[in-house]
Amino acid sequence: MNKYVTELIGTFFLVLTIGCTVIPGAAGVIPPLAIGAALMVMIFAGGHVSGAHYNPAVTLAVFIRGKCDVKDVIPYMIAQVGGAALAALAVGFLVGTGTPKDLSEVVPKALLAEFLFTFALAYVVLNVATAKGTSGNSFYGLAIGMTVMTGAFAVGDISGGAFNPAVAIGAAIMKILEFKQIWIHLVADFAGGACAALAFKIINPEDK
Amino acid sequence: MNKYVTELIGTFFLVLTIGCTVIPGAAGVIPPLAIGAALMVMIFAGGHVSGAHYNPAVTLAVFIRGKCDVKDVIPYMIAQVGGAALAALAVGFLVGTGTPKDLSEVVPKALLAEFLFTFALAYVVLNVATAKGTSGNSFYGLAIGMTVMTGAFAVGDISGGAFNPAVAIGAAIMKILEFKQIWIHLVADFAGGACAALAFKIINPEDK
Amino acid sequence: MNKYVTELIGTFFLVLTIGCTVIPGAAGVIPPLAIGAALMVMIFAGGHVSGAHYNPAVTLAVFIRGKCDVKDVIPYMIAQVGGAALAALAVGFLVGTGTPKDLSEVVPKALLAEFLFTFALAYVVLNVATAKGTSGNSFYGLAIGMTVMTGAFAVGDISGGAFNPAVAIGAAIMKILEFKQIWIHLVADFAGGACAALAFKIINPEDK
Amino acid sequence: MNKYVTELIGTFFLVLTIGCTVIPGAAGVIPPLAIGAALMVMIFAGGHVSGAHYNPAVTLAVFIRGKCDVKDVIPYMIAQVGGAALAALAVGFLVGTGTPKDLSEVVPKALLAEFLFTFALAYVVLNVATAKGTSGNSFYGLAIGMTVMTGAFAVGDISGGAFNPAVAIGAAIMKILEFKQIWIHLVADFAGGACAALAFKIINPEDK
Repeated sequence: MNKYVTELIGTFFLVLTIGCTVIPGAAGVIPPLAIGAALMVMIFAGGHVSGAHYNPAVTLAVFIRGKCDVKDVIPYMIAQVGGAALAALAVGFLVGTGTPKDLSEVVPKALLAEFLFTFALAYVVLNVATAKGTSGNSFYGLAIGMTVMTGAFAVGDISGGAFNPAVAIGAAIMKILEFKQIWIHLVADFAGGACAALAFKIINPEDK
Repeated sequence: MNKYVTELIGTFFLVLTIGCTVIPGAAGVIPPLAIGAALMVMIFAGGHVSGAHYNPAVTLAVFIRGKCDVKDVIPYMIAQVGGAALAALAVGFLVGTGTPKDLSEVVPKALLAEFLFTFALAYVVLNVATAKGTSGNSFYGLAIGMTVMTGAFAVGDISGGAFNPAVAIGAAIMKILEFKQIWIHLVADFAGGACAALAFKIINPEDK
Repeated sequence: MNKYVTELIGTFFLVLTIGCTVIPGAAGVIPPLAIGAALMVMIFAGGHVSGAHYNPAVTLAVFIRGKCDVKDVIPYMIAQVGGAALAALAVGFLVGTGTPKDLSEVVPKALLAEFLFTFALAYVVLNVATAKGTSGNSFYGLAIGMTVMTGAFAVGDISGGAFNPAVAIGAAIMKILEFKQIWIHLVADFAGGACAALAFKIINPEDK
Repeated sequence: MNKYVTELIGTFFLVLTIGCTVIPGAAGVIPPLAIGAALMVMIFAGGHVSGAHYNPAVTLAVFIRGKCDVKDVIPYMIAQVGGAALAALAVGFLVGTGTPKDLSEVVPKALLAEFLFTFALAYVVLNVATAKGTSGNSFYGLAIGMTVMTGAFAVGDISGGAFNPAVAIGAAIMKILEFKQIWIHLVADFAGGACAALAFKIINPEDK
């Protein structure tokens, strides 16, 4: 149970930071930097308890790679979405709601953008937080958080830059994304996570 | 006594950086980045001596978690407030005083904002600097400093973003906050620290 | 083979981030920060597999220093250029192409700028990722990525800031640089890498 | 001799980055970020060889603390100033010279600003790079580099933000500072370094 609480708290602060920087329209450099840092600090805080996924696509990738018990997969995802929903409530009280980004004209680009950086995110997670070759390192949170920052800078304007199905759901509740378009994020993000697990197995063939 | 000197020096540079970046009105990205970095470097410098709290709410949280001697609690807080007050004097000489942010219309939002990010701050501190599961890491200062940066980006415009009673007092001396409103920070920040200690115990049940 | 896949993936995300931040004209602080972070996270992810060069000039430097098998040199460079070319295709689909920076009036300055920061980059790589005196550290990706960020801030406006022949080729495909001018980057970057290997041997005389 | 070469190279890239970001007038967030990162990466690259001072005030502090041979003090300072002067030449070729900041009206403020942040810098260096309590850490370069970034954000507009006599000399050659005013930096910076050594001894009484 303590692992699920950790996943809920971490995802809560990730989505809280997204809402509180994106909705008031902070200058361009601020949301990606703040969001990447929020993820980083919550990973450093919670990694020793739950692995600090805070992202259903990452949970899927870690499961395929063989480092997440099958019985934890659904509870992790529920805790992540629960944390995102609670954060969306807090954001509504603190700063209101946003204006949804309309992705209807750029679906193929948004799918590719989300797929590529969710792949990058899960690929970094698997290599820095589950690989034998990097065990005991002190950089896992930095690497993972800054991957999301990089993706938000690179393709945030194209897809909204969720790279995370729980974030996409939270963003839809906060009216940053349209509910009817978050299938883009759900499809692309889970596909990116699954492909990253395969890429991990290819580049780490000895690491079961 | 060396621990109290360390707490005073660290809090001094934290509040000095706050005053020197906020009062002259540096561009939006600069104060949170500089303040988070100031806290980070002072934690890396002083952690091995005093634990590097620099924050009465953190001292409370570490005390509840069982890693701060009861006889150190009040001296730590005095050193922290003393460092903040000295820094406010230096700031007055270097850049003058600010225009206090008026929180009277947003008290509930400010209370929630301060509570949430002080909770996050103390939760990160306890997990990266006092937990068995992360002992010996090299990221504690980065994680803690960047939590304050994240909070300042997310809710600095709502509450002033102190997350620290000693900072709130220093900010009131520097006329960044109103003295009559810092009860908001005192109440919310100590409550956030105390709740973080409870959350730590829930997610680390074996770690006494 | 897994090492070559790692080099391809890492260089792909480096060049993808370059294209997606430079071509749409993101604010000045964003491209260097995003590009440095992209390199950092891919180094942390792939360093334990391939050494995470992602740069033919770095591969040359590591080879001269004696830590890259001669049989890997050409395949590494092919994988790096392949990753860059694939990224240029993805960038074309996502954000189109750029307006090439014309270096014809500043060739000597561009040569010096590229030489100096490729030297710095390879010098940092050799010292943080191959030296006995720093073995087992957790900062290698941070140090290397932030070297590229620093160089891009310092001389990006002079030379385009490639510091990497594979990036120069990718940038030419994306029309950020002119194909007819990338000899500047090829010459200066390989020279910088080679000189860095000599500098490494001078300052680490015992480290064969 | 290899230690002196390391000091020269590190200080060269620090001053090169200062000139190339300050003289063309990069946006406010860029010079401190780039300069702090330049120092960080050169410390990570050279720390295992020379201790990576790159700053005569730091060399003085490390000498007083007892971790720099007396025979190295003057050669270190010569190498640092030599690296700064060479960098100033390269900067002149790449971006020309600056407009000196006139400190004549703010001498007391500039003295205090330089003293405080050079104290902070040397205090961080001694605690993260020479203390028994932090030995073997992977954060020393990050902590030291980000201290300079913080100081530049906080008081760069007051004193020019050198915190380093070699940088002050390089800045005077590049016409960022006035030669006739760099006594301010020389006096305050050496005083800050010396006081930091005393503070280190107070907070680390057992660490000889």
